[in-house]
Amino acid sequence: MKRKIRMGMVGGGPGSFIGGVHRAAARLDGQIELVCGAFSQDPAKSKAMAAELFLPKARCYDNYAQMFARERALPAGERMDFVTIATPNVTHFPIAMQALDCGFHVVCDKPITFSLAEARKLRDKVRKTRLLFCLTHNYSAYPMIRQAKALIAKGKLGKVRKIVAEYDLGWLAAANAGKQAVWRVDPKRSGVSACVGDIGTHAEHLIEFVTGLKITEVCADLSTFVIGRSLDDDGTVMLRFNNGARGFIAVSEVASGEENQFKIRIYGSEGSLEWHQMNPENLIYRSNTQAMRIYRRSWAEQEPGIAALTRLPAGHPEGFIEAFANIYTNFAKAVDARLERKAFKPDYPTVDEGVREMAFVETVVKNSRGSRKWSKLPA
Amino acid sequence: MKRKIRMGMVGGGPGSFIGGVHRAAARLDGQIELVCGAFSQDPAKSKAMAAELFLPKARCYDNYAQMFARERALPAGERMDFVTIATPNVTHFPIAMQALDCGFHVVCDKPITFSLAEARKLRDKVRKTRLLFCLTHNYSAYPMIRQAKALIAKGKLGKVRKIVAEYDLGWLAAANAGKQAVWRVDPKRSGVSACVGDIGTHAEHLIEFVTGLKITEVCADLSTFVIGRSLDDDGTVMLRFNNGARGFIAVSEVASGEENQFKIRIYGSEGSLEWHQMNPENLIYRSNTQAMRIYRRSWAEQEPGIAALTRLPAGHPEGFIEAFANIYTNFAKAVDARLERKAFKPDYPTVDEGVREMAFVETVVKNSRGSRKWSKLPA
Amino acid sequence: MKRKIRMGMVGGGPGSFIGGVHRAAARLDGQIELVCGAFSQDPAKSKAMAAELFLPKARCYDNYAQMFARERALPAGERMDFVTIATPNVTHFPIAMQALDCGFHVVCDKPITFSLAEARKLRDKVRKTRLLFCLTHNYSAYPMIRQAKALIAKGKLGKVRKIVAEYDLGWLAAANAGKQAVWRVDPKRSGVSACVGDIGTHAEHLIEFVTGLKITEVCADLSTFVIGRSLDDDGTVMLRFNNGARGFIAVSEVASGEENQFKIRIYGSEGSLEWHQMNPENLIYRSNTQAMRIYRRSWAEQEPGIAALTRLPAGHPEGFIEAFANIYTNFAKAVDARLERKAFKPDYPTVDEGVREMAFVETVVKNSRGSRKWSKLPA
Amino acid sequence: MKRKIRMGMVGGGPGSFIGGVHRAAARLDGQIELVCGAFSQDPAKSKAMAAELFLPKARCYDNYAQMFARERALPAGERMDFVTIATPNVTHFPIAMQALDCGFHVVCDKPITFSLAEARKLRDKVRKTRLLFCLTHNYSAYPMIRQAKALIAKGKLGKVRKIVAEYDLGWLAAANAGKQAVWRVDPKRSGVSACVGDIGTHAEHLIEFVTGLKITEVCADLSTFVIGRSLDDDGTVMLRFNNGARGFIAVSEVASGEENQFKIRIYGSEGSLEWHQMNPENLIYRSNTQAMRIYRRSWAEQEPGIAALTRLPAGHPEGFIEAFANIYTNFAKAVDARLERKAFKPDYPTVDEGVREMAFVETVVKNSRGSRKWSKLPA
Repeated sequence: MKRKIRMGMVGGGPGSFIGGVHRAAARLDGQIELVCGAFSQDPAKSKAMAAELFLPKARCYDNYAQMFARERALPAGERMDFVTIATPNVTHFPIAMQALDCGFHVVCDKPITFSLAEARKLRDKVRKTRLLFCLTHNYSAYPMIRQAKALIAKGKLGKVRKIVAEYDLGWLAAANAGKQAVWRVDPKRSGVSACVGDIGTHAEHLIEFVTGLKITEVCADLSTFVIGRSLDDDGTVMLRFNNGARGFIAVSEVASGEENQFKIRIYGSEGSLEWHQMNPENLIYRSNTQAMRIYRRSWAEQEPGIAALTRLPAGHPEGFIEAFANIYTNFAKAVDARLERKAFKPDYPTVDEGVREMAFVETVVKNSRGSRKWSKLPA
Repeated sequence: MKRKIRMGMVGGGPGSFIGGVHRAAARLDGQIELVCGAFSQDPAKSKAMAAELFLPKARCYDNYAQMFARERALPAGERMDFVTIATPNVTHFPIAMQALDCGFHVVCDKPITFSLAEARKLRDKVRKTRLLFCLTHNYSAYPMIRQAKALIAKGKLGKVRKIVAEYDLGWLAAANAGKQAVWRVDPKRSGVSACVGDIGTHAEHLIEFVTGLKITEVCADLSTFVIGRSLDDDGTVMLRFNNGARGFIAVSEVASGEENQFKIRIYGSEGSLEWHQMNPENLIYRSNTQAMRIYRRSWAEQEPGIAALTRLPAGHPEGFIEAFANIYTNFAKAVDARLERKAFKPDYPTVDEGVREMAFVETVVKNSRGSRKWSKLPA
Repeated sequence: MKRKIRMGMVGGGPGSFIGGVHRAAARLDGQIELVCGAFSQDPAKSKAMAAELFLPKARCYDNYAQMFARERALPAGERMDFVTIATPNVTHFPIAMQALDCGFHVVCDKPITFSLAEARKLRDKVRKTRLLFCLTHNYSAYPMIRQAKALIAKGKLGKVRKIVAEYDLGWLAAANAGKQAVWRVDPKRSGVSACVGDIGTHAEHLIEFVTGLKITEVCADLSTFVIGRSLDDDGTVMLRFNNGARGFIAVSEVASGEENQFKIRIYGSEGSLEWHQMNPENLIYRSNTQAMRIYRRSWAEQEPGIAALTRLPAGHPEGFIEAFANIYTNFAKAVDARLERKAFKPDYPTVDEGVREMAFVETVVKNSRGSRKWSKLPA
Repeated sequence: MKRKIRMGMVGGGPGSFIGGVHRAAARLDGQIELVCGAFSQDPAKSKAMAAELFLPKARCYDNYAQMFARERALPAGERMDFVTIATPNVTHFPIAMQALDCGFHVVCDKPITFSLAEARKLRDKVRKTRLLFCLTHNYSAYPMIRQAKALIAKGKLGKVRKIVAEYDLGWLAAANAGKQAVWRVDPKRSGVSACVGDIGTHAEHLIEFVTGLKITEVCADLSTFVIGRSLDDDGTVMLRFNNGARGFIAVSEVASGEENQFKIRIYGSEGSLEWHQMNPENLIYRSNTQAMRIYRRSWAEQEPGIAALTRLPAGHPEGFIEAFANIYTNFAKAVDARLERKAFKPDYPTVDEGVREMAFVETVVKNSRGSRKWSKLPA
């Protein structure tokens, strides 16, 4: 790369959790610089954030429309290369559409949109504009998740039979869970689902990413345990896959005492894998005919290509931000390849995964409301 | 107690896993002595086992009918007090019925019978004979399971909202899994279900035991992954409970590489508990407002009565046999109380839990075959 | 075996921890029956224990001298085959000497005697009488310890370089730690060391057992943290071995909050092993060139002969009593071989290991008191 | 802060592990920007690194002397504020001295210098210049280490009695361990010790940091296992403390299969703490009178001030770089306070800790070579 890739940001104002994560992830490898932002719907808050980030005042905007218009007008050597969207779900779609229309590449937080229909329109727009679109399913960029994917691809598990993903959080166990919680359970800002939309999509994405299989049918039971909420805060979804495998996704945001307990297990005819996000540098391999193996990040028996996703020797813990940074750094390389007119095979989730996650969310919600056992995912 | 309680045994011949467990558990605390047996349908094998156990030849029988008849004819100071049934499921019912008819108390391996109808008949017989009947759901006698039950009963979790039990074994992952495996997947000997019948019943029992709640509805997806089997070897069952709680039981006997991975988690409005059978001396308590606690067997903050279920100081591992022995030793006390005409409140699973487990199995199997989402458990 | 082996017991009266362990371990596999005992220096307590154990009154003795004399006078078909000594250290020697003089095989709790001099005399007596003598270093009979020994013997670690054993207990952290604690820290009953004598000997034995190496020199720093005690309650001992390896033993009985935290690690030029007594079914193997392996009891990649030391399939936890029972059951086979005049290679710790442990204790205590850095262990 | 703090760097050229860590840590929180460097003794390599880091050519220097001279000549609004020294040990002293003489604040990798004498001279220089000096003992900035320090300070353990730190690496188990290994075991570049100097200093620092106690005497046994090395690659050091506590540090760089296994345990009269660097978000508290507690980063029961050392909610793993960044970000605040002429209480290790670590290293090495048991640390 000849220069750092220039990033703009919509959302991620004061009090936002995920905004800070996007910025730290973008910063970590030194390939990206934040050059502008419209951090809040409240211009004063946006300015406060810009000052904290040492941005020049001229590059702090009152809203995203203003930002896209003015950045577009800047000389090529100055204007942002891409925009990160870190706002509540409901606004992803209009912001992303306008960014693409203005010629900017996009990094978008998940879930991609408010509805499947929006996701499909966004996909069409991305295809038409041929711009880059990255969906930050960061868990898929943990090195040991990539190790799992590689081991499955090479047949280490035999035929995959059963896949289980569980994601438990306790943060919404009480009715009053703070400001961050408000929009999450508000159908006007979050969409048709809170819990499945927020964390079920992580589970769905990770399962399909790691195994290369597709969920074909779901049977769901969503719950709302905290009185007064209008969206789900817990759910179980039984799954069937295109190769005959079965499994389930279980999610909860009212799992008192759980921090961010995301786990996945994949069972095949010859062996199985288990990974816990809270202990992300371990990948457990079990089989009936061998002693248990624990693959460790940056240690022996790592599959090809995975070393490139790490920064430290084994035993020096890497975590969430590093996984997130793997997405950003790969995206920066993709942008650079565009600038340099070179070929580049992206290794980050795209708008296609976004369509897929919305199909999952909508099918699950519909199934949960009905008495029919199984519902097919739309293609 | 004035003397050891005398035990007879049906089943548990050469090659049986669970027969040896019953004998070791009965032996451990020195309150029970094995005095006779009909260990196999093959009298020669039965004799071989009796010799190995140092039993006098006269107390080794060719079959259970002979055993019950001859033992009954012995003087009170000599004949067995109770019989343990450790045979394949299909024979539990006739053996237990005859034992009760002959006046013997019964310890029966789980699942209790071949069908719900049999279980109900057996319950009637137990009630009529007023004899003691113990179903060896040994997992419920682990001290930390009792700690969990006590903590839930005293409200430590608030209102219980979600219950998850997962039980994964790898031993049937391949088609040819040895002699023990043959009868397990044979509908003529095992019943309408292999996997749910064998280990789903453990999960169902433990959930209801620990929480005091009742499963009211199930939605199930059972699978048979190994070609040629006519019974399930894997399944997921979504659950609804009588207090509004939800949850699921996930079981597999084709989970390659898993040993005996039985785990349970209970989430309430104020906290949650997690227990793993393979690490049975830990009970994890989590809440949103406290640091994680790990209760340890025989350590501080143990609820009343639990110390009586242990033999060793903390840090000296107790395991599966000790939990099993807790059932046997409590049953021995119950028999002794009968002998001494004293009151005794049994603390082991009974025929009622057996009826319950068969209702669960049959409802799950039926639901899994149909297209209706939810099925109610019969009362 | 034609019959159960008959055991007598000295010590292990009401309130004794280790007495109950010996009995449970002897009972577990059904190869041994307790036939008599002198359980306490107080005949009334001895009788109370005998009644609890359902022993006939005639076989409950007032003291060990009486027991040995009367048992000896019984017909061969009735008298005890061996005696277990489970008394405070100071009395091991006279009881064991007299038992051997009376022709009884001996099982003795550790540490073997009060002093190295006694241990050597006892060794001479055992050699002269050619009777069987077993020292219950039970930790050495855990299956995964045997796995470690086998792996080291076959060169899996390359050349052994460093050995670490740590044993931490919290039970003596406070001055008043109950009745059991009193004799442990009383030099008249315990010997020249409390902590090194009680648990340092376990560490010393396990190290030499697993590696096959010999400690040649020690440099020690023993401490007494609780005021008023005259013996050590904590210590660190640096070690040098006969092959050039180094290492240390660290022991504490004032490690607040620790249950029975005994761990061992062995590092070689090609790999290393780690085992924790509180998680005894795991044996961790690490190397610079492979993913971590965890060997599990009764699972794949188990070395020959180890399966015979287990009773249950993998994942059904075995613990402390099972390891202890491995010692007893092997000893029972040795006694049986004597009865049957058959050859038998014992697989339990003997009087030789007892001499070794006393040499260790005395050298450590002496070194700790002096200003010389290193002290050689007597041959 | 009004602007980012400007950093220069000496060392950290192509192939350096720790150089990249310093840069990532400085970058993570967005408070520091790297503006110049002399990354290698080879100017071509330095230029290559500068290009990779998108630095302007003018700010890439051939050597540190040139860098200090030219940066000093730049206008205040442009020149670097501080220099990070990430070179082999032998050069820390001359570089740091010159930087201070040129008026630059210093961040220096550990161990601080080649010898205790140098460390003392450096301390004098720091005091004389009144410039800021930060020694990057990054482990002390893990949030759960700060939690441990706070709990000990408030008396949660009672009187501290025993302290154990173990640090095991396998990377030098073989003779040929790569380029990074060469200077580490070269006495001309590393100093009087390899293993104690490299990782023993981490252990010594962390122990004194967490407990607030001082090591007063040591008794050491250092080893060199790999033939041909002239410095230690393994060692055990028994410790005595100024409050009467005891303990030990055990270090190895030939512990085959270990990644970066750094653990610390502190035992007091009322409780104990355990922390593992490879699982840094857990802090285990044990006591004889309570169930085990595991404090978790960003969860409940966190002591005051610790939340400021984290970026993510609990369960989103933070690791090594985040701890390192805590040091950098605090140092940046200290520099900013100087710029703004505000008071600031630094919360990072300083030159005083550097003198202390060199006193430890030299005393340990001397003791290990002699036959006297204990050696006092110089004041």
